[in-house]
Amino acid sequence: MICKGERTMRKIWISAVMCLLVAGSAYAGEAAKMKDTFSVIHSRKSVRTFTGAEVGKGNLETILKAGMAAPTAVNMQPWSFVVVTDRKTLDGLAAGLPYAKMLTRAGAAIIVCTETAKAYDKMKEFAIIDASLAGENILLAVEALGLGGVWTAAYPYDDRMGHVRKTLGIPPEVIPLNVIAIGVPAPGGEKAKDKFKREKIHWETW
Amino acid sequence: MICKGERTMRKIWISAVMCLLVAGSAYAGEAAKMKDTFSVIHSRKSVRTFTGAEVGKGNLETILKAGMAAPTAVNMQPWSFVVVTDRKTLDGLAAGLPYAKMLTRAGAAIIVCTETAKAYDKMKEFAIIDASLAGENILLAVEALGLGGVWTAAYPYDDRMGHVRKTLGIPPEVIPLNVIAIGVPAPGGEKAKDKFKREKIHWETW
Repeated sequence: MICKGERTMRKIWISAVMCLLVAGSAYAGEAAKMKDTFSVIHSRKSVRTFTGAEVGKGNLETILKAGMAAPTAVNMQPWSFVVVTDRKTLDGLAAGLPYAKMLTRAGAAIIVCTETAKAYDKMKEFAIIDASLAGENILLAVEALGLGGVWTAAYPYDDRMGHVRKTLGIPPEVIPLNVIAIGVPAPGGEKAKDKFKREKIHWETW
Repeated sequence: MICKGERTMRKIWISAVMCLLVAGSAYAGEAAKMKDTFSVIHSRKSVRTFTGAEVGKGNLETILKAGMAAPTAVNMQPWSFVVVTDRKTLDGLAAGLPYAKMLTRAGAAIIVCTETAKAYDKMKEFAIIDASLAGENILLAVEALGLGGVWTAAYPYDDRMGHVRKTLGIPPEVIPLNVIAIGVPAPGGEKAKDKFKREKIHWETW
């Protein structure tokens, strides 16, 4: 025998369970989207083995926004960014860069560029530092999105910068700091290293 | 009249509600501790107005661990870090640095140091870039902890580097890249800038 009250309570119970399921899945979705800063900083690694899958324009814009959020000396923002997703161009970049063969399997590349004339006090040192900070934000954004990336150096090598400039039509006064390969990491790929060394810290004085 | 089945269902229902409350509060706690990467990247700003409160050794170690997690060219890790919390030393640093007067109200300072001889291929360019990336991680970690920080330049100014070296006993071959002031932000202080500029992005080619 099932009384009326029992039927009502059963309905309420089913509703409560469904609420729990919805809340649980919302939490899981949120957690996937919102990776906390320290876990991203410590799980970031140089990823060189990609599946070859595309990265997507939305992801690339999210990554570039993160790059431009980095500080620059006296807020001069001397950087600019070339984004490559075209397979032929990625392969062309790889062909002339000794340590960037992974570009042939990457979904995209971001070249962080910088200009001495646009940096604070027209100092090349700040142009390089400012672009470097944007580059680190880019690497962290890549990791936060569940993608993989690796900074391959163009600067300070004249031959590599020359190849990048020629491939992408970058003017001579613009310094291509790096070519950051970005892609979907292949399963079982690179793991983050623990690089913390207490002896690198000097408390109060050297 | 309440039948037996109804009482059982009522108990189950109360349990389900309590589960929901527990799950909800666990989620809120987690969110407070774990600030997501993109919100930290976009809320980071140069904080120059501090309350004068201490920062705490635990926080400083968390910040330094984040710094050392940044990548370095060929994993050479040419950096080291001087951490200052002593009031007299902070004031002494401020006295000789034109744009670091906020140190007199900061709780701490981290000086990111780097060595050309320890960088990949003994190249100064990589020593500077590697240390810059560690510096950006430090700024993000400061923000993630709810603290405030600002990078004040020592490099490439000989006089500023000289003052930092002399104050902290840093050897001449070590480059003090910056003095990052860290503290508890004063209420109503600096806000983050939106620096995203679509015209800084070149798609596929310059």
